[in-house]
Amino acid sequence: MTLSVAVAGASGYAGGELLRILSGHPDFEVRTVTAFQNAGQPLIAQQPHLRSFADLTLVETTAANLAGHDVVFLALPHGKSGELTAQLDPGALVVDCGADHRLTSETDWAAFYGGDYFGAWAYGVPELPVAGGGHQRERLAGATRIAAPGCNASAVSLAIAPGIVASLVEEQDIVSVLAVGPSGAGKSLKTMYLASEILGSANPYAVGGSHRHIPEIQQSLRLAGASDPTVSFTPVLVPMSRGILATVTARLKPGVTADEVREAWENAYHGEPFVQVLPDGQMPRTADVLGANTALIGLAVDAAVGRVIAVLALDNLVKGTAGAAVQSANIALGLTETTGLNVNGVAP
Amino acid sequence: MTLSVAVAGASGYAGGELLRILSGHPDFEVRTVTAFQNAGQPLIAQQPHLRSFADLTLVETTAANLAGHDVVFLALPHGKSGELTAQLDPGALVVDCGADHRLTSETDWAAFYGGDYFGAWAYGVPELPVAGGGHQRERLAGATRIAAPGCNASAVSLAIAPGIVASLVEEQDIVSVLAVGPSGAGKSLKTMYLASEILGSANPYAVGGSHRHIPEIQQSLRLAGASDPTVSFTPVLVPMSRGILATVTARLKPGVTADEVREAWENAYHGEPFVQVLPDGQMPRTADVLGANTALIGLAVDAAVGRVIAVLALDNLVKGTAGAAVQSANIALGLTETTGLNVNGVAP
Amino acid sequence: MTLSVAVAGASGYAGGELLRILSGHPDFEVRTVTAFQNAGQPLIAQQPHLRSFADLTLVETTAANLAGHDVVFLALPHGKSGELTAQLDPGALVVDCGADHRLTSETDWAAFYGGDYFGAWAYGVPELPVAGGGHQRERLAGATRIAAPGCNASAVSLAIAPGIVASLVEEQDIVSVLAVGPSGAGKSLKTMYLASEILGSANPYAVGGSHRHIPEIQQSLRLAGASDPTVSFTPVLVPMSRGILATVTARLKPGVTADEVREAWENAYHGEPFVQVLPDGQMPRTADVLGANTALIGLAVDAAVGRVIAVLALDNLVKGTAGAAVQSANIALGLTETTGLNVNGVAP
Amino acid sequence: MTLSVAVAGASGYAGGELLRILSGHPDFEVRTVTAFQNAGQPLIAQQPHLRSFADLTLVETTAANLAGHDVVFLALPHGKSGELTAQLDPGALVVDCGADHRLTSETDWAAFYGGDYFGAWAYGVPELPVAGGGHQRERLAGATRIAAPGCNASAVSLAIAPGIVASLVEEQDIVSVLAVGPSGAGKSLKTMYLASEILGSANPYAVGGSHRHIPEIQQSLRLAGASDPTVSFTPVLVPMSRGILATVTARLKPGVTADEVREAWENAYHGEPFVQVLPDGQMPRTADVLGANTALIGLAVDAAVGRVIAVLALDNLVKGTAGAAVQSANIALGLTETTGLNVNGVAP
Repeated sequence: MTLSVAVAGASGYAGGELLRILSGHPDFEVRTVTAFQNAGQPLIAQQPHLRSFADLTLVETTAANLAGHDVVFLALPHGKSGELTAQLDPGALVVDCGADHRLTSETDWAAFYGGDYFGAWAYGVPELPVAGGGHQRERLAGATRIAAPGCNASAVSLAIAPGIVASLVEEQDIVSVLAVGPSGAGKSLKTMYLASEILGSANPYAVGGSHRHIPEIQQSLRLAGASDPTVSFTPVLVPMSRGILATVTARLKPGVTADEVREAWENAYHGEPFVQVLPDGQMPRTADVLGANTALIGLAVDAAVGRVIAVLALDNLVKGTAGAAVQSANIALGLTETTGLNVNGVAP
Repeated sequence: MTLSVAVAGASGYAGGELLRILSGHPDFEVRTVTAFQNAGQPLIAQQPHLRSFADLTLVETTAANLAGHDVVFLALPHGKSGELTAQLDPGALVVDCGADHRLTSETDWAAFYGGDYFGAWAYGVPELPVAGGGHQRERLAGATRIAAPGCNASAVSLAIAPGIVASLVEEQDIVSVLAVGPSGAGKSLKTMYLASEILGSANPYAVGGSHRHIPEIQQSLRLAGASDPTVSFTPVLVPMSRGILATVTARLKPGVTADEVREAWENAYHGEPFVQVLPDGQMPRTADVLGANTALIGLAVDAAVGRVIAVLALDNLVKGTAGAAVQSANIALGLTETTGLNVNGVAP
Repeated sequence: MTLSVAVAGASGYAGGELLRILSGHPDFEVRTVTAFQNAGQPLIAQQPHLRSFADLTLVETTAANLAGHDVVFLALPHGKSGELTAQLDPGALVVDCGADHRLTSETDWAAFYGGDYFGAWAYGVPELPVAGGGHQRERLAGATRIAAPGCNASAVSLAIAPGIVASLVEEQDIVSVLAVGPSGAGKSLKTMYLASEILGSANPYAVGGSHRHIPEIQQSLRLAGASDPTVSFTPVLVPMSRGILATVTARLKPGVTADEVREAWENAYHGEPFVQVLPDGQMPRTADVLGANTALIGLAVDAAVGRVIAVLALDNLVKGTAGAAVQSANIALGLTETTGLNVNGVAP
Repeated sequence: MTLSVAVAGASGYAGGELLRILSGHPDFEVRTVTAFQNAGQPLIAQQPHLRSFADLTLVETTAANLAGHDVVFLALPHGKSGELTAQLDPGALVVDCGADHRLTSETDWAAFYGGDYFGAWAYGVPELPVAGGGHQRERLAGATRIAAPGCNASAVSLAIAPGIVASLVEEQDIVSVLAVGPSGAGKSLKTMYLASEILGSANPYAVGGSHRHIPEIQQSLRLAGASDPTVSFTPVLVPMSRGILATVTARLKPGVTADEVREAWENAYHGEPFVQVLPDGQMPRTADVLGANTALIGLAVDAAVGRVIAVLALDNLVKGTAGAAVQSANIALGLTETTGLNVNGVAP
């Protein structure tokens, strides 16, 4: 049975990646693509790499245009989906790639985003372990409204949650530094995202600030058993279009050994096709997961400082956004979780 | 029916790309992967992006190890396949991604390569038009020994052959300049391919020389109807891992109009899924075909100089090498030509 | 004697580069820096790399603010300097890095730019040979109004003019393809200049069109002795912030030898510190001239097509713009031409 | 008075950068350049960007060839200078850019490097504050044997030492993550440094290991007042040829305020031309210091985790290596410390 699909925000980077992935999904057929400014144009004028959708034309992003589909993916700027989603068909599966429905705490919403709070939807990084056993994927089964996780939050949470759920690391003073590509910012026309500013340079931004990704990370770590986790989050823009390389460190609890660490991480992701812990001594590179729905984790214990260093690579547009959204939709609809998702990266 | 496949040279870039494509091919099953120095290692140690092949181990590149498969892909350095192939099972389909069997002229071989000449195999860029109608793909049907085309020759030939076959352009004084990524050179350890040499720089090489790609281009242009074509070929290494952006210009014959040019190119590739002519005013970017088996052509007539400018983008490792090899194998075996091949690029 | 200097458009890339060069010029002292939107900010807020100017504040770009200086450099968007310059002190040396005063033909201006024509100023790529002997630098001595050449026009003209002045090449059907970095476009906020669009890709633009650089190239080639030169010009954006690598080819006149070619080019630039012809077999890389006021030329004769291939590398912001402007000012003021200008690139 | 200079290892990246800087130094004249494999070649064949040294020829790296100069700079692979230096003229100033003479602890040498220990020379990052007042520069005055600091150690030490010397941060559990360009590895021909491996990817290496830079950092932090500092050090290769962006975090001692932090850092580097603390809210980019002898520091207090985050940008080849060596030589010889050194970066 083929399900009809609409993608809102189809002229952006996340929307384009959703379409690229959906083009290989056997159960979904994209019928409608919408945009704000570019409505009326052929999709391919905005996304010239999506040759298989040469017959689609962008229509305006309205509830009417999104109606009548089995599945609706929203790839809209933050703050744009909240209002729209209230008008969508209750029976359709709606997956929002934006942040509007991620946070369960209205206080966090007010503190980190502000503006109207539209309430939390089913949220889950499928592979994330939760306290007491199981994974976040269980929260997605049968859902009709899903808030897909943010790319940075997924990266940091996946890297460190195994240590939380196994009680091996301190939940406070988690320190993360992320090398990130500019595509995560979408097509926003700001000087800081111009090629001339990014090429040949490493550019940190919003350091020490109250990043919007932090409450989302904390939310997942609490599900993993933490009560009051604290996370330092420093993103550095580097000259690659895609990719997140998150270096996440946490203090080990007294007496924890490197073997216990490795065992905990391997247990947490045992059998997971899309989240893999590399053998001792190996570290992941973002190129290894480019275009793939895969997160790779390299693990080291730094005995001198008493910390575990978990380095995680993912493609912000795939496992970080569009792949995660499709994976979540698969789970919600009861399809095989891996359907239409690729595990192999495009390298070099 | 699943065909068993061996890939020789599986630790290199071309070999890795063959495997990435084959992982999505429903009719092929990779049973054997071989290497020279890295034999004995898990494939994934050399190709950490190929997660779906985690169970394969590299064995030595010998005729014995390659025996017993329905299809053998060779991704070996130039000069390495000639000897080996003589020992392979005559009944197997062998597709050589190297240059050893491409040239039909032993004189050209001696002039541009030198060393032992191993004879030409069935060669074809499937979509290339040939004089008198038809395409090079007809040369591949039923073949058991195929020399897959070189990436640079494919780019230049596909860009300009429609003008030759339609007798719209002069066959002499074709001028091509190519922006190319370094992955085309494989993993060769030369200073010129170090990241520090390539990053932030545009580096021409072997300018004005007798490039090995030229006789291969001439061979295809002769099939398209030229008798003595001459081609200037200037490659410029630029800081992108993959991709060829070929700017190919040829003098228009007297009186040829822009409309005739467009019509000739569109006719030549009408209905081709993998070679597409963009609408007037659009130009292709290599990012649009990254990871895809697609070549995109932008077309302009420069009236001031009386030339057509055909700009072609392809991914050197896919449409330029591994995708071309799989496409050829599909044709040779009578499978649907597009099986296992992706038309959508990974962008941005 | 120290001359007082104002730089208009100091918050842009060309303005910043002027300041970087002027910071090392012993005869100039920058007193005033102006901008449009960013007036009122410390210069260093817009140009954080210019640490030596930490005490300068941007003031508005007005004739009043530019008055009272010995030398005024204008680094404004095209079309912005024409009106302003009418109001500047006639006794000051004004060097315009924009296009407004480059073209001597009002017809060309109307055809390629349009809008009000403000008349031509003294224009010269100092090293360009002119018919009958001498160089364009002679046109700059003593001038008080100078139109600095455009970066692309300088690259193509310098590459091929020696063949014109020596009557070795045909003046028609000159074919040029340029790999260019995005900094030449300044800080314009267009999607095509976003890092995500440029990284990992080669992007041609405006192919076959009537590039604004063409009449400027023709103007210089006519000075070199051509009567009706025609030039095809194809720019390709590549992922490096700076640099132009121009591959320029021209048909050789019958009987011209490679030795004659080399001699002509070496004669044309004999003794020039900033324009150097590389030995046979060597080709320039843009990294070799990054940050330097140097243009390097590699030379080859492609006998098969009967063309000379001249490959020229320069830094679009230095030899292409700001260095050229300072060099011209040195000449106009009777200073040593090389003062404050660096011949060594920053590589790797 | 002009001092005669020899540069050993002049065909490598560090050697080339020494020469680029020395070309603008008014008191030094480079007379001799040496190499291992490339001896006999013109310097410019190996360093085509150094146009001003067109008349120099590489000679073999021997004590005899290095004799008779006032100043000798060594830019040799680690382990190569120890033996050589024993034979150099005791009266000459020798500045070693390698690691052989940096560590004062033979135990550390044995643990982190191994092989013969050649003893420590005068070592100093000039601006680093030392306990009890003053800076490391005092250790360099009048020295005749100087071990120039390593680039990574300089970056981390400069970022965090102000907190140590002012007793504001804990000396243990310092966590640093560095985005680094590949030029720091020199021209070593390893697969991991190929452009195809680096382009479009972020590649961590040697994570959690006992980096050779760590004892050098500890040595400087002890001079700043720490007794047993511990540092976690994670380097990530990113696609820029030069630059280090070090994110260094340390736990604040109880009660320390953001104002105290800012004051301590600003005091530590007050009046320093080459190490500057940016205003609140600003962060440095590596492009801002490209080609400059400048280190820029951005500062933030992350109250949630109780850490200071100091982000430091420097050019690994200039302030990290060759600029540091020249600055040290200036100090040792009693020249003005800033002579020949540039504070402005080449951006964009």
